[in-house]
Amino acid sequence: MDQLALLHTLVVPNTTKIVLLVMDGLGGLPMHPGGPTELEAASTPHLDELAARGTCGLSTPIAPGITPGSGPAHLALFGYDPLRYEIGRGVLEALGIGFHLQANDLAARGNFCTLDPRTGVITDRRAGRIPTSECARLVEKLRSIRLPDVEVFLEPVQDYRFVLVLRGEGLSDGLTETDPQRTGVPPRPVEPTRPEAAHAAALLNRWLEEAFRLLADESPANGCTLRGMAKNPGLPPMPELYGMRCGAIATYPMYRGLARLAGMDVLPSGSTVAEEVDTLRAHWEAYDFFFLHVKKTDSAGEDGDFGRKVQVIEEVDQQLPRILEMNPDVIVVTGDHATPALWKSHSWHELPVLLWSRYALADPVDRFGERACMAGGLGHIRHLDILPLALAYAGRLTKFGA
Amino acid sequence: MDQLALLHTLVVPNTTKIVLLVMDGLGGLPMHPGGPTELEAASTPHLDELAARGTCGLSTPIAPGITPGSGPAHLALFGYDPLRYEIGRGVLEALGIGFHLQANDLAARGNFCTLDPRTGVITDRRAGRIPTSECARLVEKLRSIRLPDVEVFLEPVQDYRFVLVLRGEGLSDGLTETDPQRTGVPPRPVEPTRPEAAHAAALLNRWLEEAFRLLADESPANGCTLRGMAKNPGLPPMPELYGMRCGAIATYPMYRGLARLAGMDVLPSGSTVAEEVDTLRAHWEAYDFFFLHVKKTDSAGEDGDFGRKVQVIEEVDQQLPRILEMNPDVIVVTGDHATPALWKSHSWHELPVLLWSRYALADPVDRFGERACMAGGLGHIRHLDILPLALAYAGRLTKFGA
Repeated sequence: MDQLALLHTLVVPNTTKIVLLVMDGLGGLPMHPGGPTELEAASTPHLDELAARGTCGLSTPIAPGITPGSGPAHLALFGYDPLRYEIGRGVLEALGIGFHLQANDLAARGNFCTLDPRTGVITDRRAGRIPTSECARLVEKLRSIRLPDVEVFLEPVQDYRFVLVLRGEGLSDGLTETDPQRTGVPPRPVEPTRPEAAHAAALLNRWLEEAFRLLADESPANGCTLRGMAKNPGLPPMPELYGMRCGAIATYPMYRGLARLAGMDVLPSGSTVAEEVDTLRAHWEAYDFFFLHVKKTDSAGEDGDFGRKVQVIEEVDQQLPRILEMNPDVIVVTGDHATPALWKSHSWHELPVLLWSRYALADPVDRFGERACMAGGLGHIRHLDILPLALAYAGRLTKFGA
Repeated sequence: MDQLALLHTLVVPNTTKIVLLVMDGLGGLPMHPGGPTELEAASTPHLDELAARGTCGLSTPIAPGITPGSGPAHLALFGYDPLRYEIGRGVLEALGIGFHLQANDLAARGNFCTLDPRTGVITDRRAGRIPTSECARLVEKLRSIRLPDVEVFLEPVQDYRFVLVLRGEGLSDGLTETDPQRTGVPPRPVEPTRPEAAHAAALLNRWLEEAFRLLADESPANGCTLRGMAKNPGLPPMPELYGMRCGAIATYPMYRGLARLAGMDVLPSGSTVAEEVDTLRAHWEAYDFFFLHVKKTDSAGEDGDFGRKVQVIEEVDQQLPRILEMNPDVIVVTGDHATPALWKSHSWHELPVLLWSRYALADPVDRFGERACMAGGLGHIRHLDILPLALAYAGRLTKFGA
């Protein structure tokens, strides 16, 4: 029996409330030997106080040495084994713009690009980063393309990016991307990597052919590429699995999409951490489980900006008392993965996790930081362990076996 | 998706260098309550300094309570699940003498023994430990034995030990050993433990029958036994899996054989630790991953010689600066398993592991020892986690998922 099936059999109703506060890319590293990490450098009196009252540890998002993308890392936090449920880039993009994918939809991420009109080779993979308004105009033009036996949806995303979704029977994933990832060569055709994907490959190639014809007189976006073709992975929805009303608060489209994929309601929110906490308060009675996502820790890490990451962590710390005032029964604070400013990218490192409930044993950890959490009562866990622990501490799981 | 498949999909090229320094049987125990382990007793200023700058932990070779042989312990260090890939003694012996096993070869370890000429019972399982030269003469004599439809290879190993390899179609492992492990009883016949091994059993019994006839007038080696019949487990080679040039430095045949099985090049080396480091330096540019194996820690542990094991550890510590001078990007120091002098044999205990890279978070551990490593940032890991971590820290894995 896998974890989901086991948990599902153990679920009991309760009125408790769980908050999962995720600082994207939280984990960090010292910029110089002997220095602090971002979280260690930040002044976090409220997180430290909560750490002192709760139980802490370090968590591995996927497996030792594996650096996760945002999709798998969040799936693990939501209790889905990311090695079993894979999420393609096309699906993430579609969900991120609020597109409601149906079970058999096939989604692709599209990029407008610039082709040499004479040779057909790509001269700019992002078409000079055209503005979103231009993207929308081109998408409207391409919406005239019809394909046999399937519905075609096309939506602008941002700048040069769009989403293409095919809806119909017999669409399989297992398709190669058309973006050659470099200039000076033409876009590639879509090829099936397994026999059942041949139908979808043929449809996408036909769509591309018509798209190239319609874009031929445009400039600079006279071509496009398709990437990350993928089907909805069909996650069993969290509300059905756990009998909880699940609400998500996230400012970036991708994370709202991930939450929707897990069956959560996406709650409207402003973009600051304070506004996200306002949203939490506004919906406090209507939900049992809240996923609250803070994006800017990761963005700062990706930019190698240690100081800005410290500031975002401090901003979250300042909002923590407002969350605690609502009296959650369980609050978990962690990240989806590490994004050390030193590494300027997602990394494989373990990252701190803090769990407070009145039933959590306070461990000796009285600071929320990478090294302090090494001595924590949770020890070294995996992200996939976090949701079951939160459910248990919230009194939402009965015992296994007699 | 298993670990090997997952890692293989994530591999990216890099020019970084990894050193895996393995002190065989490193883990130890105090000889008396309150005393130090071998590693704790040893003066290891350079290892301690590296521990202070790196991240430490304890690693379980296979699973809690499982004492590994050298084969499975090294497989785990090389990233192969030892419960999936089993290595028989015959295979180890064959590889250890440089025999290049082909995919379907069946290998057995042979022992010359002494039989009572009248009753046929074994009177000495090692034929008075005949010298290697005598072993070679007897092997030459037995090379006249032919079997139908298979090639037969026979090679002397050392003292009373030889290797027998059958090459041909339809040879399956799943065979009982003929050495009864005691004197006073005759050698047993080979029996198949599964139906498809019946053919191989019949061939080996026919070979044994002819061998006994040819040895009848010899003394003291007038018989032989066969053990550890096994096929090449067919490990996917590390250079193909990880895109790394892999070199092995080991003074004992079995470890060279294990490394060859994993696809590493075995580099010629003298027998002291200093000479092994000379070899490392001589081949530094030509390889990306180095397995450097020190045998004598284990031999001392097996002999129950606490002091000698301490000396070997100190010898390694004195050579460490010469390794660090080459500026590896990642260095991992550990053992394949514990061999406490108190226990005089391999054991199941966790053993210390130290990982240094410029992206490793320095934890509070500033001594390389069993108890110091309990507080380490790596926590409690398994040997199978070590290679993925080394690859990640070396920047040789891209992220999983979008």
